[in-house]
Amino acid sequence: MDTLKVFHTTIRKETRGNGHTIDLTSELQAAVRESGIQNGTVTLFVIGSTAGLTTMEFEPGLVSDLQRAFEAIAPTGASYAHEARWGDDNGHAHVRASLLGPSLTIPVVQGQATLGTWQQVVLIDFDTRPRQRQVVIQMMGQ
Amino acid sequence: MDTLKVFHTTIRKETRGNGHTIDLTSELQAAVRESGIQNGTVTLFVIGSTAGLTTMEFEPGLVSDLQRAFEAIAPTGASYAHEARWGDDNGHAHVRASLLGPSLTIPVVQGQATLGTWQQVVLIDFDTRPRQRQVVIQMMGQ
Amino acid sequence: MDTLKVFHTTIRKETRGNGHTIDLTSELQAAVRESGIQNGTVTLFVIGSTAGLTTMEFEPGLVSDLQRAFEAIAPTGASYAHEARWGDDNGHAHVRASLLGPSLTIPVVQGQATLGTWQQVVLIDFDTRPRQRQVVIQMMGQ
Repeated sequence: MDTLKVFHTTIRKETRGNGHTIDLTSELQAAVRESGIQNGTVTLFVIGSTAGLTTMEFEPGLVSDLQRAFEAIAPTGASYAHEARWGDDNGHAHVRASLLGPSLTIPVVQGQATLGTWQQVVLIDFDTRPRQRQVVIQMMGQ
Repeated sequence: MDTLKVFHTTIRKETRGNGHTIDLTSELQAAVRESGIQNGTVTLFVIGSTAGLTTMEFEPGLVSDLQRAFEAIAPTGASYAHEARWGDDNGHAHVRASLLGPSLTIPVVQGQATLGTWQQVVLIDFDTRPRQRQVVIQMMGQ
Repeated sequence: MDTLKVFHTTIRKETRGNGHTIDLTSELQAAVRESGIQNGTVTLFVIGSTAGLTTMEFEPGLVSDLQRAFEAIAPTGASYAHEARWGDDNGHAHVRASLLGPSLTIPVVQGQATLGTWQQVVLIDFDTRPRQRQVVIQMMGQ
């Protein structure tokens, strides 16, 4: 039973697109530490419709394995109505981003996001060109 | 450091089922505005096991591209144990909904959900018939 | 306008791995009840990188239908860079877990998580061996 603390910050990343996968864990845990929140939640949200967030064991083998699964679900070379309509080349990027989802919420307990040792928070940029991405971090609790 | 505000509302939608995709963004932003919450989070949750929520650039090309990806992952005409057991015809709808997920949480900063310009919140109804859907909106913050 | 309540608990489950799907709904609703929170949110988060959370109508037909979809997306017998690099056999488990996601947030209204009647919260363990899993439950509200 305490008053509410709410703090937000934005992590900015230059990506290479094309499935570039970036580990946000240390910046996330630093933001939680700086907030002083001991118990609550942290929500991450990537702005835009061609990138997504998830957790994974962040090692190069799994980064490429996950890309291969996305290639099976929404192939790069397939025909997309989005591309026919707008002259774009990133239909697969939009589909992959919508399937993965833009947000994650993680409990904060004893001042830390409750990730496993081999579980990192990652941003995946599916777009077909380098992008500047913003991931909004919203921390709430006491 | 302020007292907590919690407000909920429910968005009700008549859908056509069969992948009907509905943009909830303007109703979501209106609910956030009416709550008066300046900093916090908004959680959306669709009740039921044959619909899901995500974000996308809401344009007809991508709506059909996303449906095509779901058709590849869980085809309409395939054989489902759910259908064999219960005499239903919507096994693919259940599988798609579980893969997409029922919930989204978005930061609220300066009185607005932090969506991108080309990023809309959508409800996708995978069921095989028209449905009345309820999306619960829960806003928390200060 | 009230002071904030934050309560967390951890649900521990022994799983058989290999897609073992466990209904957490009654433990979740009991935790929400015990918290005394009437309006707010409950966040579930599974620790680890080879398990995920979603909602579904929990019946054996759909449990197997969902596994079949995951088998199509990330087949058990395929070649994974993760396995080549680390001598592991669970590349498919990692890929499936990252696609499904580790977290869910559900509104709490009138002291209950707003699930549908045929909508259960499930833990799916994709790993290739029995595991002891921890699902952190974080409840916030008033």
